Amino acid sequence: SSNIRLAVIPGDGIGTEVVAEGLKVLNAAGVKVETTEYDLGAKRYHATGEVLPDAVLDELRGYDAIVLGAVGDPSVPPGILERDLLLRLRFELDHYVNLRPVKLFPGVETPLGKARPEDIDMVVVREGTEGLYAGAGGTLRRGTPHEIATQESLNTAYGVERVVRYAFEKAAQRPRKKLTLVHKTNVLTYAGDLWARTVARVSQEYPQVETDYCHIDAASMFFITQPERFDVIVTDNLFGDIITDIGAAVAGGIGLAASGNINPDRTAPSMFEPVHGSAPDIAGQGKADPTATILSIAMLLDHLGLTAAAEKVEQAVAEDLVERQGARATRQTREIGDDIASRVAG
Amino acid sequence: SSNIRLAVIPGDGIGTEVVAEGLKVLNAAGVKVETTEYDLGAKRYHATGEVLPDAVLDELRGYDAIVLGAVGDPSVPPGILERDLLLRLRFELDHYVNLRPVKLFPGVETPLGKARPEDIDMVVVREGTEGLYAGAGGTLRRGTPHEIATQESLNTAYGVERVVRYAFEKAAQRPRKKLTLVHKTNVLTYAGDLWARTVARVSQEYPQVETDYCHIDAASMFFITQPERFDVIVTDNLFGDIITDIGAAVAGGIGLAASGNINPDRTAPSMFEPVHGSAPDIAGQGKADPTATILSIAMLLDHLGLTAAAEKVEQAVAEDLVERQGARATRQTREIGDDIASRVAG
Ligand SMILES: CC(C)[C@H](C(=O)O)[C@@H](O)C(=O)O
Ligand SMILES: CC(C)[C@H](C(=O)O)[C@@H](O)C(=O)O
Repeated sequence: SSNIRLAVIPGDGIGTEVVAEGLKVLNAAGVKVETTEYDLGAKRYHATGEVLPDAVLDELRGYDAIVLGAVGDPSVPPGILERDLLLRLRFELDHYVNLRPVKLFPGVETPLGKARPEDIDMVVVREGTEGLYAGAGGTLRRGTPHEIATQESLNTAYGVERVVRYAFEKAAQRPRKKLTLVHKTNVLTYAGDLWARTVARVSQEYPQVETDYCHIDAASMFFITQPERFDVIVTDNLFGDIITDIGAAVAGGIGLAASGNINPDRTAPSMFEPVHGSAPDIAGQGKADPTATILSIAMLLDHLGLTAAAEKVEQAVAEDLVERQGARATRQTREIGDDIASRVAG
Repeated sequence: SSNIRLAVIPGDGIGTEVVAEGLKVLNAAGVKVETTEYDLGAKRYHATGEVLPDAVLDELRGYDAIVLGAVGDPSVPPGILERDLLLRLRFELDHYVNLRPVKLFPGVETPLGKARPEDIDMVVVREGTEGLYAGAGGTLRRGTPHEIATQESLNTAYGVERVVRYAFEKAAQRPRKKLTLVHKTNVLTYAGDLWARTVARVSQEYPQVETDYCHIDAASMFFITQPERFDVIVTDNLFGDIITDIGAAVAGGIGLAASGNINPDRTAPSMFEPVHGSAPDIAGQGKADPTATILSIAMLLDHLGLTAAAEKVEQAVAEDLVERQGARATRQTREIGDDIASRVAG
């Protein structure tokens, strides 16, 4: 088969370090891959003022998939790289599914004293192209005592239905077959009504899937007190942002949390990135855990239909996580990558 | 001194049970109080179709404070009692501070394996009258494939500044004197900008208070992994809703989480209620923990300037929580109330 063409955006801070290990593991999996690196992020912004030139965006559209490390640096005004690079990619490439597994691997320490791996094994399907992330809103009389600032959540039947359908498909494929809508229907009545009606309607096509509903506040609590309640979760962009960070916390930390920004219709490449940021405080020291990126690579392989390779990578990570008990703090970024890569190759 | 005039809304489910214990403790504290009960909630709604008649609202304005148990029942369409009773009271009585302590009392079990009481001791100052709770938004082409649903967050300089000032005052009174703004400024750019500028401006009047900023997603994680980061938090209505439920979870559960809906200008009575809901599944069985309501009573006393009585109640709760280790599941709602009341009286 022909090579997989991959665009790689290492980005800033630890982004470059973890992406190197992700690619190492990808190569170890024996996947024929051709990578092209794009220097987007803080350096490019400072050097040229550019964040994501249209021509680069157009080029990116031509790849099979994108791998992103992390963007952001204290030297760049907050929000610029997030909005004009990260979120712009998600919106322009129509990544309407932001897929974030929340899984406690055996051997991994969780801050929850009593949780066991079988209690924390879910997938969050976060909407990626609507809601409060649309950027709608405005400011009037800025800086005066009469200022008002608005922020609008935009939700469409089109946008909600497609992500809900994806979530039902996902749930139907899993042993528990349970889908929980997380929203705040008692307060966000217009948007909540659209989400709830859509889930109710689509559920009729999936009689084998049990559906449930949970307010975002209660769900945030249950992630901590009863994570075993959840199998697949579908939720809007902002609630998904929050709840997947809670998920990362309970499943052993941001160093392990993977994500895929997925365009299920394949009209543009999907993008895979660790949930963590660029962590400038530990950048360049070999301290970052590349595992989240490596698990994101497994998601990429799965998305491209390379299921066996995906499983091999996830299995290697699982084994590494069991082995690393006790040795946690002692390996460098590169050593963790090496160890996982040799398990994959071996 | 003259009697305190209290309006009491026991509400639905366990609401009536926990409020009875709260009032028992209030009496035990030797506070002269005159209570008037209002039957608002599911029963009234079913009997008369009324949720909060204007005449009742006007009467409520005349009290020194309001105690609310919990409202809501599966027999009432979701959102009605929440919006037209609970949220209407908060908005009409201008409860612009929703004060929610997050405190791990010694002796209380937390799901966080390693957290100690000194790690979890913060106060969340949640805005109570603006943001996405304003109810702004709409639906177009409802029920069709072309439906759009919007939900608007409304933020004013007036509304943000007053709650931010309250939070700085609160922080200045605490030993650590640290105030953290929690928002999502990198995505909610208009609202976030107003909040961040307001905190920056008001902070100049409080040089003794250290200010910090944290995105809502990161803050949600830090509540679990590094709760000791926080002292006083100020945040908007929705983020405050979410983060205080995370707080309740890590500080020993919803059975202990107290709250005050406060009108600091005293143009209308403040309202004190446990964070938990009406829990219809355990209602009428004497299983509810009245501690959250009793701690809310302590907040009420504090608000009314009865500081000594407030401290006596909080101290009695603290002692009860130490004693109850091991005896946790065995006491009925009424017994817990009795035990705390006799500590307060004795
Ligand atoms: C950086 C930020 C814009 C982003 C988001 O809010 O989606 C991040 O928190 C994430 O979850 O990927
Ligand atoms: C019942 C609901 C409307 C309410 C809220 O969202 O504020 C509750 O969750 C709370 O936190 O008091």
